[in-house]
Amino acid sequence: MTGPGSVDLLHQHSLADVLRGHAGSRPGDTAAVCGDVRLSYAALDERVNRLAHALLAAGTGGGDRLLWVGQNCHRLLEGLLAAAKVGAVFCPVNWRQSADELAFVVEDADPAVVFWQEAEIGPVAREVRDRGLSKARWIQHDGEDEGGYEAFLSDDATEPAVAVAETEAVLMMYTAAFTGSPNGALLSHRALVTQGAFVAQMMGITADYTYLNCGPLFHVATFMTTLGTLVSGGTNVFTPRVDAEELCRLIDGERCTGAFVMPPTMDQIIELNTDGRFDLKSLRTFPGKPEWTAMVTVDDSPWGRKPAGYGQTEVMGMGTFNALGPSLGTHGRPPAFLRIGIMDPDGTVLGPGETGEIVVRGPTVMNGYHNRPELNAERQAGGWHHTNDLGRLEEDGSLSFVGPRTRLIKSAAENIYPIEVENCLKAHPAVADAAVIGVPDPTWTQNVKAVVVLRAGQSATAEDLVEHCRERIASYKKPKSVEFVDELPKAGWAVDYDALDARFGGGGYPGAGAFHVEKD
Amino acid sequence: MTGPGSVDLLHQHSLADVLRGHAGSRPGDTAAVCGDVRLSYAALDERVNRLAHALLAAGTGGGDRLLWVGQNCHRLLEGLLAAAKVGAVFCPVNWRQSADELAFVVEDADPAVVFWQEAEIGPVAREVRDRGLSKARWIQHDGEDEGGYEAFLSDDATEPAVAVAETEAVLMMYTAAFTGSPNGALLSHRALVTQGAFVAQMMGITADYTYLNCGPLFHVATFMTTLGTLVSGGTNVFTPRVDAEELCRLIDGERCTGAFVMPPTMDQIIELNTDGRFDLKSLRTFPGKPEWTAMVTVDDSPWGRKPAGYGQTEVMGMGTFNALGPSLGTHGRPPAFLRIGIMDPDGTVLGPGETGEIVVRGPTVMNGYHNRPELNAERQAGGWHHTNDLGRLEEDGSLSFVGPRTRLIKSAAENIYPIEVENCLKAHPAVADAAVIGVPDPTWTQNVKAVVVLRAGQSATAEDLVEHCRERIASYKKPKSVEFVDELPKAGWAVDYDALDARFGGGGYPGAGAFHVEKD
Repeated sequence: MTGPGSVDLLHQHSLADVLRGHAGSRPGDTAAVCGDVRLSYAALDERVNRLAHALLAAGTGGGDRLLWVGQNCHRLLEGLLAAAKVGAVFCPVNWRQSADELAFVVEDADPAVVFWQEAEIGPVAREVRDRGLSKARWIQHDGEDEGGYEAFLSDDATEPAVAVAETEAVLMMYTAAFTGSPNGALLSHRALVTQGAFVAQMMGITADYTYLNCGPLFHVATFMTTLGTLVSGGTNVFTPRVDAEELCRLIDGERCTGAFVMPPTMDQIIELNTDGRFDLKSLRTFPGKPEWTAMVTVDDSPWGRKPAGYGQTEVMGMGTFNALGPSLGTHGRPPAFLRIGIMDPDGTVLGPGETGEIVVRGPTVMNGYHNRPELNAERQAGGWHHTNDLGRLEEDGSLSFVGPRTRLIKSAAENIYPIEVENCLKAHPAVADAAVIGVPDPTWTQNVKAVVVLRAGQSATAEDLVEHCRERIASYKKPKSVEFVDELPKAGWAVDYDALDARFGGGGYPGAGAFHVEKD
Repeated sequence: MTGPGSVDLLHQHSLADVLRGHAGSRPGDTAAVCGDVRLSYAALDERVNRLAHALLAAGTGGGDRLLWVGQNCHRLLEGLLAAAKVGAVFCPVNWRQSADELAFVVEDADPAVVFWQEAEIGPVAREVRDRGLSKARWIQHDGEDEGGYEAFLSDDATEPAVAVAETEAVLMMYTAAFTGSPNGALLSHRALVTQGAFVAQMMGITADYTYLNCGPLFHVATFMTTLGTLVSGGTNVFTPRVDAEELCRLIDGERCTGAFVMPPTMDQIIELNTDGRFDLKSLRTFPGKPEWTAMVTVDDSPWGRKPAGYGQTEVMGMGTFNALGPSLGTHGRPPAFLRIGIMDPDGTVLGPGETGEIVVRGPTVMNGYHNRPELNAERQAGGWHHTNDLGRLEEDGSLSFVGPRTRLIKSAAENIYPIEVENCLKAHPAVADAAVIGVPDPTWTQNVKAVVVLRAGQSATAEDLVEHCRERIASYKKPKSVEFVDELPKAGWAVDYDALDARFGGGGYPGAGAFHVEKD
């Protein structure tokens, strides 16, 4: 908790200030809808204050983590905003995790409070609670009795007298790990407010916007829009999970303007609404199958017209937007508040056309991962956030995302990223799958070796594939040798590069084992 | 100048970062057009670096003031951005001021550098320079020789190695004074960037936007849009001053999407373009007379539909927007980043419906006035910026601006504070007392009328007094008419302005039922 003395009240703009502002400037506008609950901004502010006072009375203070082990609900928004008011960190966790996965998160986050849900998640949540891994207080948010959320709320609805700096973390989101365990990205008030405001601009969100929160709020992809709606003074409607008919009922009944709907759900909606009994015209969304497009309103916001870009949880969602870039072929440009660069592993800034690690700086960049000091030092070297993703800047300054950074192959002084060579190989019509490893070379440090799976009934020689690469990428990146296999070994869904190294003599990687790969 | 150690590079987003970002992300896009000069963002960044190195070599450092005594020009933008890179404060001053007024500003600002202009302003600028009031280096921006701007630029176009915190001031704008002398409002990097981004959202400004800078850039009203265009990566076109035919030529030739055009200029444009020789359809602006509306494209952005609100220089322009408020009758709501309240003189927060002083906090609030410690303590009491304006919050949370604590006379875009003209009149040896009111004018909103009591045994004509003012204050502030009375009506100890209005036809004050309230 930060004392008032260290907070610049005159210029302060925390997430709590967003709520305070709306409670003052649009007190009667609807902030949240969830089942039978409808909350104006004034009413939401009161409930958030009651939760904040309860947290303070329970000894919750600055930097303490509050876990949300539940589905979408207005109480999730209240928990986030109460964390904002008391200086705590709110963390919505993946409710589809196994007990062991959830137990890892509980131990890692070491929360002061866990808000948990009986419906759908009860057995796993209770199992983890009963393991006694933390001193957290477990509060059932959908419980009616003494241990429940509503009983926990304080009667005191006044503004709590805590000054919280906007630079402090208020949200933690676990990123999926490619290898090893997930990490909790700590995102500041300012990151949330800045990204929320910009997403609102890109998506055309205003105070009239009603967002249906049906996507999983432990993912930044849908959380960005929730924030855009909150920052704009719009209405967030919550439903526990995706259910096509319930979505239709809510879009129709609440005149929702936005929703996070994936293609399989679109198909279900087309089927159940052939008779047009639900009016979905309020929904501004992407076009799709003709029946879908006829039911909804095609979104002509900048994002609606070009809904793509590059991003990661560590920058609170989108980092570049195709809507800010050229028409085709790249992943667009960053907003003015995010600077972007390309660096090679020693920190040298690379010029247009050169592939390296994407680095960014700006107010949406995370404060760091919870409890990972060494990793943070590495990822924040030189005052840039090292994304662990590969990309290049085109001549027009737009970004092309190449892929996640895995191992680096070194040939003489040149850095070669396997994914770039793999993408090139996969573009050959005869190639079904490909992986690239480095094999030791006494003169050049390493040589590139490709391991290729051919498509059924297709053929290509090693020479064909090497020549294919020579014509398309820098010559030093082309494979020196090619092995053909029936299938690539996998570790989970990812290629098992260690197995490939063992089988085909890979090794000699620079900084071996130093690379952490996480993104979602 | 701030050392790198105190700047959070990872999350930093200064005005200089906006330029660096665009130079990287859209290097070839046109940033500025001025006469024959066309600068891409990459070229602008290079020229800004050359100016920054020249300033550093001249010993200019953190917090030093750089005065711009000139009209609109791409070099004004370069000066602002070079200030951003070296940690200095750029101050565009009113070039229509008298020598005495300008001299006051030069003494008050105590600048390290004055960029001045020979064309139109030369005699006044040289007179003030030659008074030797400051140790400033005077650089003629439109001079070709050794003492000129282009000769001053360094050959070094590399990025200067100075870390500047976004919380530091980068812009100073003098506000007209209610009492005595004007004050320089110090506005931070963050204030400029935050307001620029929001104005862009309200005005529909994107990278495709081309803004014609024809309004006076020592006014925040037009500077806001310049910033919105810069933050969005659009094009700023500069022209020294309002000239209807030149405006038409530039709108047509550069396909300008925005411009600051007042009604008298619209009338001139209607007249000179009856034959349609200039194509002005690219201009998105407010509708007007039928001939005007037919020539341009009606702006349907949120701002275009509701171009009003409340603001002041001290919050970098607009503080509330009608576009965020109810349809009619108030001055709208603030953006999410600005909190607003109403206080009585002892600091008590007032509820809806009660009139008091408007107070605000948020990142667009000025850091304070240059060199006014007592006034700053008063205006920043309790961590709120006290606006010196009166208002009330309605039941729906929107703000109604009631008026400045003294009245304001509006002549075209210019604000005229009665007390300033009154002080000038009272300095005339024949004048015992004087009061100034505004009388409605169909073209200029209001005209200044003086009501004067002569000293016993003294005489002066109306022409004498108008000429006396013309020599001492900006020409637009001088009375257009003078009435002589035996004594001024009083309400208590103060002049009864309402009685003067009733007797001499005063009225039409901004804020008194005016549609468009924008003051500085």
